[in-house]
Amino acid sequence: MSELDKIIRGLKSGSVRMLGRAITLVENDDPRSQTILENIFRVTRPGYRIGVTGPPGAGKSTLVSRLARKFRETGNKIGIIAVDPTSPFSGGAVLGDRIRMNELSTDPGIFIRSMATRGSLGGLSRAAQDVSELMAAMGMDIIIFETVGVGQGELDVARASDSTVVVLVPESGDSIQAMKAGLMEIADIFVINKADRDGAEKMKIELEMMLHLRTPRDNWTPPILKTVANDGQGIHELYDVINHHAGHLKSRGILDTKRSERMLEKIRTLVAENLQEKFWNQTREVYLQKKLDDLMTRKISPVRIVQDLVEM
Amino acid sequence: MSELDKIIRGLKSGSVRMLGRAITLVENDDPRSQTILENIFRVTRPGYRIGVTGPPGAGKSTLVSRLARKFRETGNKIGIIAVDPTSPFSGGAVLGDRIRMNELSTDPGIFIRSMATRGSLGGLSRAAQDVSELMAAMGMDIIIFETVGVGQGELDVARASDSTVVVLVPESGDSIQAMKAGLMEIADIFVINKADRDGAEKMKIELEMMLHLRTPRDNWTPPILKTVANDGQGIHELYDVINHHAGHLKSRGILDTKRSERMLEKIRTLVAENLQEKFWNQTREVYLQKKLDDLMTRKISPVRIVQDLVEM
Repeated sequence: MSELDKIIRGLKSGSVRMLGRAITLVENDDPRSQTILENIFRVTRPGYRIGVTGPPGAGKSTLVSRLARKFRETGNKIGIIAVDPTSPFSGGAVLGDRIRMNELSTDPGIFIRSMATRGSLGGLSRAAQDVSELMAAMGMDIIIFETVGVGQGELDVARASDSTVVVLVPESGDSIQAMKAGLMEIADIFVINKADRDGAEKMKIELEMMLHLRTPRDNWTPPILKTVANDGQGIHELYDVINHHAGHLKSRGILDTKRSERMLEKIRTLVAENLQEKFWNQTREVYLQKKLDDLMTRKISPVRIVQDLVEM
Repeated sequence: MSELDKIIRGLKSGSVRMLGRAITLVENDDPRSQTILENIFRVTRPGYRIGVTGPPGAGKSTLVSRLARKFRETGNKIGIIAVDPTSPFSGGAVLGDRIRMNELSTDPGIFIRSMATRGSLGGLSRAAQDVSELMAAMGMDIIIFETVGVGQGELDVARASDSTVVVLVPESGDSIQAMKAGLMEIADIFVINKADRDGAEKMKIELEMMLHLRTPRDNWTPPILKTVANDGQGIHELYDVINHHAGHLKSRGILDTKRSERMLEKIRTLVAENLQEKFWNQTREVYLQKKLDDLMTRKISPVRIVQDLVEM
């Protein structure tokens, strides 16, 4: 049996070790990962995808751990994908995640994996989605994306998720910053974590005001919860609200729409890759290199070069 | 004369109003923007591009304003591009930027523009670069990209810049967060702003330690400066260090390499768009819509659909 067959069989029979190998292939953008995804496609159930995002230091990791345990209580199998921007230090798993991984990994119903993004445009969104498909094929019912930072990565993860939870802390600056960072647009649920600190209520009121200005989406007004993830306060409420949001999406057909949009996105990405692979043959690469000097001295423009390449 | 001709002529003769119109076309991803870029390509000098990035609330806007005035002292013309993630509230220019715009706009040698990113993958990088080309065509010597947040957007702007300045504040959490956010990899220069607050020296020491672990790039060790942008402290030093970095890049041919990489990136993007535009004709779009149900019930996989589409 080939290595690839072993991985595919392993995934279907629930081997965590083979899941790890498959994820590595996805992370390395290895073409074999697409063969795996193709082979498990029919047996994959969709799984429910939750994105947890917010500024660094908001306590997302602790919150996600607590939430995962809560979902476990009702017998769900959980996959956690912690997305880190590329960092040569972390190699895809920073210290905190390693500690947490040990803490949660005693439970065979929770699988946790840190992923680096390799800094490529759209790389995060795509790799994270591919990994979530692998996890869904393994029978995981709930898949949680956790991202560090504020920016494009969050938009990507929001797109990959059914419910997006935005975590803020009273100290993370005024709510204007959250607005500037585009978090208002992606949140289905707001969590003010470390809510035992000063300013939590003030932040809640500010967020409520800003939500009134927001264009409504999916017929849903994002609730604002207060939590203290460290001692478990508010986790049950968060769990309830996520289930409520999931029910809302399902009953209105919005969940199906989200899922089909993701499938179409995947198809468009595969098409784009296919076209570019075929286009950039030896002849065209050589031509481009030959024109580099003229390009740098602005004798020939990028648009003109593209015309030449297309007509080749 | 057509509207387009008017804009092109206006850019060449330094009309700020026409620059504004051209930027709007770029932001809206209007195909005419590429025609404009094509027409100004030969007259455009490269300009020196500085990226300023870091977490929300680090005081980037104030720092950039001070820096712009410093560069003005030696007769440079300055363009500032403040990149915001899409926000329906801001419409591309949040309150703070409006205030600042008024403050700086009394100087005809400084042009400042806020841009929204529209949340599209790679949209930020591309639009910001196109706008910087417009500014360079207008004769601007220094172009400063300023971005809000931490994430993919920052990586994009780092790619578009010759010198990348990462701004942190003592309160922005420990340096581990900066590391997690991938800022260590993109920084050419570190600025600890609001350095009159507690923890500035501690942060500097931590950053120095982490820089020792970093794989060196461009034969350059990022200096770490302390500033208090509000009262101008450290701005002169920052100005000197940026000039020093620019000299370093020029003398070693690294600047030319960066510029040619950006041109090649631009060509590859244009090719990708061209290919996709031709590919997604009516027939293929209709086929895709017809297969949507089978896709959702997982009777046919994305890979199989792509194969069918390609063979059409």
